[in-house]
Amino acid sequence: MRVAIVGATGAVGHELMQVLEQSQQRGSLKIDELQLYASPRSAGKTLPFGGQDLTVQVTPEGPIDADIVLASAGGSVSLALAHQWASEGAIVIDNSSAFRYDADVPLVVPEVNGPEALKHKGIIANPNCTTAIAVVAVAPIHRKYGVKRMIVSTYQATSGAGQKGMDELLTETHKVLHGQQASHQEFVHPIPFNVIPHIDAFQDNGYTKEEMKVAWETHKILGDDSIKVSCTAVRIPTLRTHSEAITLELEHPATPDEIRELLGSAPGVEVRDNPGGKLYPMPLTASGKYDVEVGRIRQSLVFDGGIDLFVAGDQLLKGAALNAVQIAEYLQEHGAIKQKAGV
Amino acid sequence: MRVAIVGATGAVGHELMQVLEQSQQRGSLKIDELQLYASPRSAGKTLPFGGQDLTVQVTPEGPIDADIVLASAGGSVSLALAHQWASEGAIVIDNSSAFRYDADVPLVVPEVNGPEALKHKGIIANPNCTTAIAVVAVAPIHRKYGVKRMIVSTYQATSGAGQKGMDELLTETHKVLHGQQASHQEFVHPIPFNVIPHIDAFQDNGYTKEEMKVAWETHKILGDDSIKVSCTAVRIPTLRTHSEAITLELEHPATPDEIRELLGSAPGVEVRDNPGGKLYPMPLTASGKYDVEVGRIRQSLVFDGGIDLFVAGDQLLKGAALNAVQIAEYLQEHGAIKQKAGV
Repeated sequence: MRVAIVGATGAVGHELMQVLEQSQQRGSLKIDELQLYASPRSAGKTLPFGGQDLTVQVTPEGPIDADIVLASAGGSVSLALAHQWASEGAIVIDNSSAFRYDADVPLVVPEVNGPEALKHKGIIANPNCTTAIAVVAVAPIHRKYGVKRMIVSTYQATSGAGQKGMDELLTETHKVLHGQQASHQEFVHPIPFNVIPHIDAFQDNGYTKEEMKVAWETHKILGDDSIKVSCTAVRIPTLRTHSEAITLELEHPATPDEIRELLGSAPGVEVRDNPGGKLYPMPLTASGKYDVEVGRIRQSLVFDGGIDLFVAGDQLLKGAALNAVQIAEYLQEHGAIKQKAGV
Repeated sequence: MRVAIVGATGAVGHELMQVLEQSQQRGSLKIDELQLYASPRSAGKTLPFGGQDLTVQVTPEGPIDADIVLASAGGSVSLALAHQWASEGAIVIDNSSAFRYDADVPLVVPEVNGPEALKHKGIIANPNCTTAIAVVAVAPIHRKYGVKRMIVSTYQATSGAGQKGMDELLTETHKVLHGQQASHQEFVHPIPFNVIPHIDAFQDNGYTKEEMKVAWETHKILGDDSIKVSCTAVRIPTLRTHSEAITLELEHPATPDEIRELLGSAPGVEVRDNPGGKLYPMPLTASGKYDVEVGRIRQSLVFDGGIDLFVAGDQLLKGAALNAVQIAEYLQEHGAIKQKAGV
């Protein structure tokens, strides 16, 4: 398979290369060629892949000659160029929010709605990180018990704002520890030892776009607009892995044991739920992990037969790079990649 | 007034002395004498108050000869000794959870249920920090619109575990920034750049005691057991101020504007809710502040006519020291402190 990464030098680009390498190593994807693209500023850099040093090129403003384009260079770049990249047959798996709500563009979490990927018209959207992590745990519950209401509060890591977000947390925390004032550039306010309930732009209804994405994208991925979803999205001073407290009202009552058993066999989920053993989802243990950790499973105190749970998922992986590569793997497994002549 | 502080050398003790000094400066409480008590380990230390250096004495195992005892030395110390401290007429305002659920002991947030304080039998309980901060915002809403369901997710600072909690965050973060592994003692897991959904002991129902306290104490303070309350309590790497995402289902529908207006005149509340101006509650701005910041007020997406909001309150102040001193002020204002002869 011939793969291209657009945005290769960013935090997600870095993870994409690692996840691709791991996919190749376990015999899932066979990467015949990897093209790396980034902004002119980063062009010329070399990045190691499969024992070779690959040179980063400037993102093309035309078709990309590859089977799969993994795009993670931001919404405006994708909006302007993704259709051109795809114009000669490449399938673009786009990590931005540019196309997620287009009726023509499948929004895919392979464990949840993989078959949707096969309906693409050149572009497949990778969901918002918070949503991708939540639905891996919520989808099996919805299928079996019917989710009526879903209330989410997030604990989002600085790498949600890319490598620069992590760098800012580290640099500014260092300053604070040495008695200096923290400044800020990537975040709206200083992030060290702070909590910022503001991610992405505010909408007219008082919710941020990040919060609305969780509602919009949960509806689209689960294929059910009737679920009432709300979210409070909060940036906290962690490096990677988004955590989420989720309260679910269910159509059919469920017990915590039933949910534990259900999620125990759910793909992409690691049930980590042993309070006595001090086991529950945390960034410390979920970071770098493919599976989303799910724990603190307990009976809701506000909805009869409802369920509360806590999830932690590495948003650079399941929330971004891993999910994108899993979409590529899904397409390959289902014979949906017509590899070009000459490869 | 003759005041004693038990636990004077802890984080809350430190705040108590500052808040008392400020109360005296603005002419509210007149402190004729301040006695400082702590464990034998800390006895003999001197702490400055009102221009004098006061010597810390060993916590007595008998009556304390004062009008008000502000106790913040942990539940087991209070449980063992508070009745003795109060046995000769001192009123004990206890910051621990030892007596909060006793029918005989009022649990008081002065802005919300001040008159309860007057019914004391020697001991008045100061609520759990998370609850105190939440009810300041929720009580006025409950009075006017009737809260049916209340779903809380917390972002709790390390100072909830006292000075040692803050010290551990700072020390261990410093280690991580210098490439070393973080260890832990005050918290169940390393706290730097981590999130720990485990505060206080797990109960049989899968909730932590911290989470249940929010339900139990909200019921007692609001005098209404019919409200359905749930909480997910999460420790995050901040120094002080607990933040909380709160979703409210209401008996009578309210609009965000109505709630903003209502809370704009509520005692103990600072409405900080201007997304365009990047104004919302944050530890960065709420720390050191008496009022609880309330913002992100918006119409619920899951409950018709319901309300979502975000609060941030300095839990060493409103969640502990300030509330305790405000109870003393309330008692004084209502002539409920019979100052002893000779003072």
